[in-house]
Amino acid sequence: MANQYISTRNLQFLLHEVFEATTLNQYEYYQEYDKEAFDMTLDASKQLSDTKLFPYYTEMDKQKAYFENGIVKAHPQLKPIIKAIAEGGWISAHNSFEQGGQQMPLTLLNAALLIMYSANANAAAYAFLTQGASNLIQSFGSQELKDQFIPKMYSGDWQGTMALTEPQAGSSLIDLTSSAELTEDGYYKITGQKIYISGGDHDAVDNVVHLLLARIKGAPAGTKGISLFVVPKLREENGGFVKNDVTTAGIFGKMGQKGYVAAHLMLGEQEDCRGYIVGQPNMGLRYMFQMMNEARIATGLMATGTASGAYYAALQYTQERAQGRHPSNKDASQPPVTIIEHADVRRMLLLQKAMVEGSASLLLQCSYYADLHEAAEGETKEKAHLLLELLTPIAKSYPAEAGIKAVSEGMQCLGGAGYCDDFPLEQYYRDIRINAIYEGTTTIHGMDLLGRKIIMKEGKALQLLSAEIQGLIVACLKDERLAPYAQKLGATLKELGDTTTHLLGLARKETPETFLSDATLYLEYFSLVILGWQWLLQGQKASAGLATAATEDEQHFYEGKLLTMRYFMEYEIPKTRGMKERLFSEERVTMETRAEHLA
Amino acid sequence: MANQYISTRNLQFLLHEVFEATTLNQYEYYQEYDKEAFDMTLDASKQLSDTKLFPYYTEMDKQKAYFENGIVKAHPQLKPIIKAIAEGGWISAHNSFEQGGQQMPLTLLNAALLIMYSANANAAAYAFLTQGASNLIQSFGSQELKDQFIPKMYSGDWQGTMALTEPQAGSSLIDLTSSAELTEDGYYKITGQKIYISGGDHDAVDNVVHLLLARIKGAPAGTKGISLFVVPKLREENGGFVKNDVTTAGIFGKMGQKGYVAAHLMLGEQEDCRGYIVGQPNMGLRYMFQMMNEARIATGLMATGTASGAYYAALQYTQERAQGRHPSNKDASQPPVTIIEHADVRRMLLLQKAMVEGSASLLLQCSYYADLHEAAEGETKEKAHLLLELLTPIAKSYPAEAGIKAVSEGMQCLGGAGYCDDFPLEQYYRDIRINAIYEGTTTIHGMDLLGRKIIMKEGKALQLLSAEIQGLIVACLKDERLAPYAQKLGATLKELGDTTTHLLGLARKETPETFLSDATLYLEYFSLVILGWQWLLQGQKASAGLATAATEDEQHFYEGKLLTMRYFMEYEIPKTRGMKERLFSEERVTMETRAEHLA
Repeated sequence: MANQYISTRNLQFLLHEVFEATTLNQYEYYQEYDKEAFDMTLDASKQLSDTKLFPYYTEMDKQKAYFENGIVKAHPQLKPIIKAIAEGGWISAHNSFEQGGQQMPLTLLNAALLIMYSANANAAAYAFLTQGASNLIQSFGSQELKDQFIPKMYSGDWQGTMALTEPQAGSSLIDLTSSAELTEDGYYKITGQKIYISGGDHDAVDNVVHLLLARIKGAPAGTKGISLFVVPKLREENGGFVKNDVTTAGIFGKMGQKGYVAAHLMLGEQEDCRGYIVGQPNMGLRYMFQMMNEARIATGLMATGTASGAYYAALQYTQERAQGRHPSNKDASQPPVTIIEHADVRRMLLLQKAMVEGSASLLLQCSYYADLHEAAEGETKEKAHLLLELLTPIAKSYPAEAGIKAVSEGMQCLGGAGYCDDFPLEQYYRDIRINAIYEGTTTIHGMDLLGRKIIMKEGKALQLLSAEIQGLIVACLKDERLAPYAQKLGATLKELGDTTTHLLGLARKETPETFLSDATLYLEYFSLVILGWQWLLQGQKASAGLATAATEDEQHFYEGKLLTMRYFMEYEIPKTRGMKERLFSEERVTMETRAEHLA
Repeated sequence: MANQYISTRNLQFLLHEVFEATTLNQYEYYQEYDKEAFDMTLDASKQLSDTKLFPYYTEMDKQKAYFENGIVKAHPQLKPIIKAIAEGGWISAHNSFEQGGQQMPLTLLNAALLIMYSANANAAAYAFLTQGASNLIQSFGSQELKDQFIPKMYSGDWQGTMALTEPQAGSSLIDLTSSAELTEDGYYKITGQKIYISGGDHDAVDNVVHLLLARIKGAPAGTKGISLFVVPKLREENGGFVKNDVTTAGIFGKMGQKGYVAAHLMLGEQEDCRGYIVGQPNMGLRYMFQMMNEARIATGLMATGTASGAYYAALQYTQERAQGRHPSNKDASQPPVTIIEHADVRRMLLLQKAMVEGSASLLLQCSYYADLHEAAEGETKEKAHLLLELLTPIAKSYPAEAGIKAVSEGMQCLGGAGYCDDFPLEQYYRDIRINAIYEGTTTIHGMDLLGRKIIMKEGKALQLLSAEIQGLIVACLKDERLAPYAQKLGATLKELGDTTTHLLGLARKETPETFLSDATLYLEYFSLVILGWQWLLQGQKASAGLATAATEDEQHFYEGKLLTMRYFMEYEIPKTRGMKERLFSEERVTMETRAEHLA
């Protein structure tokens, strides 16, 4: 218990009982992944996490990364950690055999990664940033780029990054101004600045490979003039490596994730920064969307992992700390009870469990759709693709937003101790906050959901999703243990449908600004229904599991699942009532407000 | 604008237009406080805050207090800050003339203090802890104690503290074990440990005076055996000062409020720690409740001030930062707009304004009741006392909990910049979190509200409060600008009444554990209605003000108030719908859950 940061039993439940993910081996690409392969994979990740990652979580915060004499000094353990992850084959695990990978289903890989993120998100993040960057080269790069960069990225010797943000271009990428000029030698001369570049420079690797967006001189304005380049920190020349005129101006002083550097980079100050184009000119943003979608799921995993670590730290404390007595027996001569005996402490723990395990379930659901999109054919493939597209903004933002609440409740379980650095809760609290900003703020995902995903293909994704949820509800109405909750979710789904119809009506009558003005609230509403779906699904499988549970531990596991499902339906789903009231209202408070009203 | 951390115009609105607080000068105690005295007081506080407090807010965090060679080193500016606050007469301002004070109404004093807390809560807190401690000596101490300690506390030379918490006794004070043994010389020998003692030791003062709870040997168990002592760090002996065997073991590594030390104290390790009893033996907890109630209002002010500072920092950023375009005109060749142009950014700003100014209003409402309780007679006095008692758990916990959300939205307005220490938002975010733990966690206040305050005097306080709110609603129904919101609040108040009746019914049918199991949720529900009341009240006065506004600025001020009231009614009040659904439910999820379900 002392070292618990995740429940592997829960991951097995999700993989085998909820998603039956070993059935993916019906597809050729994944044919080697039977139950044994799944279990070995989880074990390997847990082993690595127990020994290499978790022991350094708080240490990497207290002995944080720093910038000195032009060099970013990472924690000394980072190098062996990155090497260990790389040697385990984790960076390339999902890639094809011919690419040097293991053709591992994303459903399994992401379950394994969740273990690592739970153990130490700040260390794991470096390796999985390299994964995303190398995937971009694999998907769109020339053979020459692949040969030159990928082996060193898979081996963990070189760090990959995604270099998008500039001082004047954050949420609005179309305003980026970094420029690229084609030379006679075939490479591009790059100039510009990039900020908040995670893993952008550090001394735990020999080189850093930036997947960087810039504009080729003369390219059209807006999204259609952005190209993607590989820009290394050091470039190969005459059999050796020379500096590629990528200078680190400094690292950002972040509130949390202090072990995970974010760098400020200056490119081409000496006019000697070379970039190598990936794919076709002006297609950069489209290519980058692949990495951004992967990064959104990765952000969800990071948030969920951080909240999982915090949950188990809080759970342990509540079982050890004695304080107070039951309201019905306040006799001061009796010893105090452990605080898990207090109902409100259990409410806070259930909230955390519901958010952590609900998020994990949703992320594996999305991963499963990604696997079907990759391996299946025809309608199954298309449906999986549409559902993944629709669910991505929720899979990114719910774990981030709910994770902030969950960790805060974890801190609250510890009282004053939670606020102090003798316990890890204060670090989890600082660390998790960034996930609602990474990879598009929550607002951006609200706009993505309501402004694009709901209406794409004339609402087909939404119809498929509703049918999926409705099917589950119908099945669960037959189980009396589940029927009241299935009914409640059904009514809520219906209300969400009515609300969506109402908003789409607004889109026709009012300005786009008005239509989208409460998109964040709609995202929150939609997310609660999605999580309700994932919890009912888990409830369905837990109900089945309970019927055949062989041991007391198994019985408690399934009972715990059912109680947590009930927590979600009782305490979280009702929050949609007020959201519906607001979204149906004709008051346009935020639209009427101007800057001069806010002083 | 660059240095704004609070709106003094808003404080004038609350004092003069909402509470008409100068009418307090009808009572003899406050007779000197006319409008001019009010305005001079606010000006003096603003002047002090602008010059001495606000300039050091971030600096006191970056150059935090530390413990070295047995000495707690505070920021070098702390000493001049404490002296300046003391010299302004702020520590004793509320006390009577004969006590050396100015008989300043609490309503005015707390408005002035809110300015200081907004400017730099971590510095101001030291002085107002001394205020609370000296008030305890004033109320219950002997003349000798008053003569010995109070002058040096009022002058800012000595720090006061409240020394309650022990390693095994936090929320449950009755388990404290620090002991006191009467000696032949009339003083007590104190032994024990105290933790999390704010201001408990530092080098910006010459001495620290602990108002400390301990048990006299042989005293009864539980609450009835706790006594209150003055325990100084240095005691007077033979015309000089000697160490009083109070040793600082260290200070806590807090996530925030790094300029405001929390010490771990060892008492009587050399058996030479002397304590001087305050008032009667075994009455300590009762006396301490005076300080705790003051400290609860002070915590509300601290949280509100912190959220106010964060709000204005976020507001400034949103008016300077250009990013993105309106959904109806995404032409990339046009320059981007400042982000306050985006509706969702305005939603986040309105949320902050609603929570900051709503909290300020509630805290001044409570202060006004405290003044009436002190100065008035008969029914007015009793009503004021009952309402203050009922509202205190909300005045403590709402600003703390809502403040956490408000500052988080402030950070979100800045995106990545909000997470980095080039901007103050990350500090506000760390700093504000403790307020939901200080002076009783939110759970404790939920239990206080539902388990004690609602039912005290057969529900008389609740009846008085309902009548007060209902009276306002009836008045506002006549103003067509307010009627829809008055109606909405009225319906919500009715629902809250029904819910309260339902819960009190449970109290008769079920165990106290079940009755109180959702007390935190009830507190949140109750708080929203209370804040709705405060916003309708502000709306009523703003509507009146708008009718006679002489300048454009004044017009915008009142329009901003009305828009923020509407924000609260549209986005916050509907949250009660789901709470009602939950509180009426017969599902007992948290009661059925056991530790083994949560692993």
